[in-house]
Amino acid sequence: MGAFCYPFIYGQADPTLFDHQNWRQCALRALGKRDFPALTSDYYERDDPLLIEQILRTILPRRGIAAREGEVLLTLGAQNALWIAGSVLLGPGQRAVVENPGYPGWRAILETSGARVLPVDVDAEGLPPERLPPADVVFATASHQCPTNATMPVERRVALLQAAEREGFVIVEDDYEFEMSFLKPAAPALKSLDREGRVIYAGSFSKSIFPGLRLGYLVGPPSFIAEARALRAMVLRHPPGHLQRTVAYFLALGHYDALINRMRLAFRRRRQVMVEAIAAEGLEIAGQGGVGGSSFWMRAAEGVDTEALALTLREKSVLIEPGRAFFDPSSAVPNHYRLAYSSISPSRIPEGSRGSRRYTWRGTRRFR
Amino acid sequence: MGAFCYPFIYGQADPTLFDHQNWRQCALRALGKRDFPALTSDYYERDDPLLIEQILRTILPRRGIAAREGEVLLTLGAQNALWIAGSVLLGPGQRAVVENPGYPGWRAILETSGARVLPVDVDAEGLPPERLPPADVVFATASHQCPTNATMPVERRVALLQAAEREGFVIVEDDYEFEMSFLKPAAPALKSLDREGRVIYAGSFSKSIFPGLRLGYLVGPPSFIAEARALRAMVLRHPPGHLQRTVAYFLALGHYDALINRMRLAFRRRRQVMVEAIAAEGLEIAGQGGVGGSSFWMRAAEGVDTEALALTLREKSVLIEPGRAFFDPSSAVPNHYRLAYSSISPSRIPEGSRGSRRYTWRGTRRFR
Repeated sequence: MGAFCYPFIYGQADPTLFDHQNWRQCALRALGKRDFPALTSDYYERDDPLLIEQILRTILPRRGIAAREGEVLLTLGAQNALWIAGSVLLGPGQRAVVENPGYPGWRAILETSGARVLPVDVDAEGLPPERLPPADVVFATASHQCPTNATMPVERRVALLQAAEREGFVIVEDDYEFEMSFLKPAAPALKSLDREGRVIYAGSFSKSIFPGLRLGYLVGPPSFIAEARALRAMVLRHPPGHLQRTVAYFLALGHYDALINRMRLAFRRRRQVMVEAIAAEGLEIAGQGGVGGSSFWMRAAEGVDTEALALTLREKSVLIEPGRAFFDPSSAVPNHYRLAYSSISPSRIPEGSRGSRRYTWRGTRRFR
Repeated sequence: MGAFCYPFIYGQADPTLFDHQNWRQCALRALGKRDFPALTSDYYERDDPLLIEQILRTILPRRGIAAREGEVLLTLGAQNALWIAGSVLLGPGQRAVVENPGYPGWRAILETSGARVLPVDVDAEGLPPERLPPADVVFATASHQCPTNATMPVERRVALLQAAEREGFVIVEDDYEFEMSFLKPAAPALKSLDREGRVIYAGSFSKSIFPGLRLGYLVGPPSFIAEARALRAMVLRHPPGHLQRTVAYFLALGHYDALINRMRLAFRRRRQVMVEAIAAEGLEIAGQGGVGGSSFWMRAAEGVDTEALALTLREKSVLIEPGRAFFDPSSAVPNHYRLAYSSISPSRIPEGSRGSRRYTWRGTRRFR
C-alpha cells in the first residue's frame, strides 16, 4: 500500500479544495489598519456586525430561518455552540433526549452537566417523535443525522415541533452538515418551522471552511441568546475579532459560496468512488443518507470489534472511526464504524478500501 | 473638550504602537500552503508545537519558570485560562480566597462554580499570607495586583507558597501584566518558586499583543493540564490553529520583544504624563504600583459614587472604570475608580483629566 495515508476520518481540511488565495486576501484585508480598532478590542457585548449581517442575510435564509440581530451569537465552533446551549438549558437532574447512535460530543456535555441522559434509537428517518420520553431538552441532527446520515422528512420535523409545543421541551438542532446537501436540495431547518422559539439552532463555518477555524453560531430567542452571551463572556469572552472579520469578507465577496460549490462537486464524485469501492470490497453500508453528507455509516461482520480494527488499520495508514463512541454505553454494538470522505483524495479511496478488507476481513465471513 | 474620546479604560489596543506590518507578515506566513494541513485540522490533543516551544524557551524562562511540554496548555485568553482553572479546581462548597479588591472576572467564575468565596483585604504589598482563612484555592495577582497595582515582595511570595505547602491549598497566579514592568525588573513569578506543583499559572498574549487576539496559556502539573485539556476540548476544542501559528512566528522572529519594548517606553511616558495630570487636577491615587503596569487605582472624595461619575463622564467622552465591581459586595465602597493608560494617547491625557475634574468634582470638596 505504500507510504500514503488513507484518512477516512473527519477533522482535516482538503488543501486541494480550499481557496487559499482568497482566504489570504480576506485575512489581509481584515488585518488592515482600517479594521484594526474594531478587531483588536475586547468586545463581548456584540459580535462583528459585518459577519452577523452575512449570517442574517444569506446563511440563515438558505436554511429557511428568519432571525434578527439579538437572536444570533457567534461561538468558537459547533462544539462550543452545543456546550453553551447545554450549559444554559440543562442542570443536574433535567432530562435530555439524545439520538442513539448520536454525536458523542453532545453526550459528553450532558454527562458533565449532570442531566439525565435518555437515549432514543434513531431509524432511517432520524429521531422518531412518537417514541420520545418526557424530556426538558431533545437533541436532533435533522439534516444529516450523526452518524447514520439519515435526513428527517418534513412531516417528521413538523411532528417533532408539535410535540415540543405540546409537551414543553426545547429542541437543540445541530445542523453541522447543512451545506453538504449535494444530492437533493436541503430541507429547511427545524428552526425554520419554529413559531414559539422552541428550537435552538447550532451551525458552524468550521466544517465548510476548515475545522481548525473554530467559528460557529447559535440562533435562538433573545432571552436565550442573552444568557448564552453572558456565559460565553465568562468562559472565553468572544471568538477572535480578526477571524470574525475574515469570515465576513469571505462570505461577502462570494468566496464562501464558490468554495461550497466546489466541495459539493468534489464530495459527490468521492461519494460515487466510495460507493463503488465499498461494493467492490463487499463492505456493508448501514447508513448513507439521501441528500449528501461526507461519510458512510458502516457495519462490519458480527463479532468484529471496530476499535481493534481501527488500530490494526492505523498501522497500514488506513484511518477509520470506530462506531462504539456514538452509541449509548448500555446499547453499544462493537461492529459499526464510520468512513468519511471529506479529507481523502478520490485516487486513494479504492486502495484504502482494499486495505481495509485485506487486513481485517480475512478470516471473517463475507457479509451483505 | 471637542469630539475626541478619552479612553482611560482597558480593552483596546493602541494602533500607534502596534506592529501592523510584521503581524501581517506573520499571519500571511501562517496562512501559507505549507502550514495549511497543520493549522486547519482539528487538533485538541496537542497545541501548535512552534508556539509551545516559544513559550517554553522564552516566555516562561523570563518569568523564572522552567516547564515541559505537558505542563502548558493554550487557552482562549486569560479569562478562558482562569475559567478552566476554576472549573478544574473548584466545585460547590469548596473554599476560594479572592483578593479584595480583586479581579471581578475571577469572582464571577467562582460564583458560577458554587464555591464559597472568601474575600481577603489586600494591602500595599498585595495579598497578606498571614491573614488567609482555611481554603482550597487562593487567587493571587502577584506581579501587578488587580486593581491596586501592588507588587508582592519576594519574601511574601515565599511565605504564601510555604502556607500553600503547609495548609494544602492551590494558588492560581494570574500574571496578566507581567510584561508591563518598566520601572523595575519584574520579580520572578510565584510559579518560579513552586517546588510541589502548588501553583497554577495563567498568562496571556492578549494584553501585550492586542485584547481581541484571545490567546493565553496555563502552566501547571501534568495531571492538572491533562484535566484542563479535556475540559477545553469539550467546551471549545482548541484556540484557532492559525492564530497559534501567527503568534509563534511573531515571537520567533523577535517582533514580540520589539513590540513589548515599544509599549514599555510608551507606557512609561504616559505614566509620567498621567502622574502630572493627576497632580495638576488634585486627584488622589490610591494605588499605582512600583514596577509599572498600565493603570492607576484612584480614590474620589468621600460620597462620590463613581458609577454615576462614569456615566456623567461618558457623555463628555471621558471613559473611566468605576471601582465597585472590584470589591466584594459586602465591603464595596463607591468612591474608587481605575484610570488605565494603555489605550489613550499621551496628548489627550491632560485634557481628559481636566474633563474629569471639570465635570465631576465641581461642588465636591477637593481632596488629598
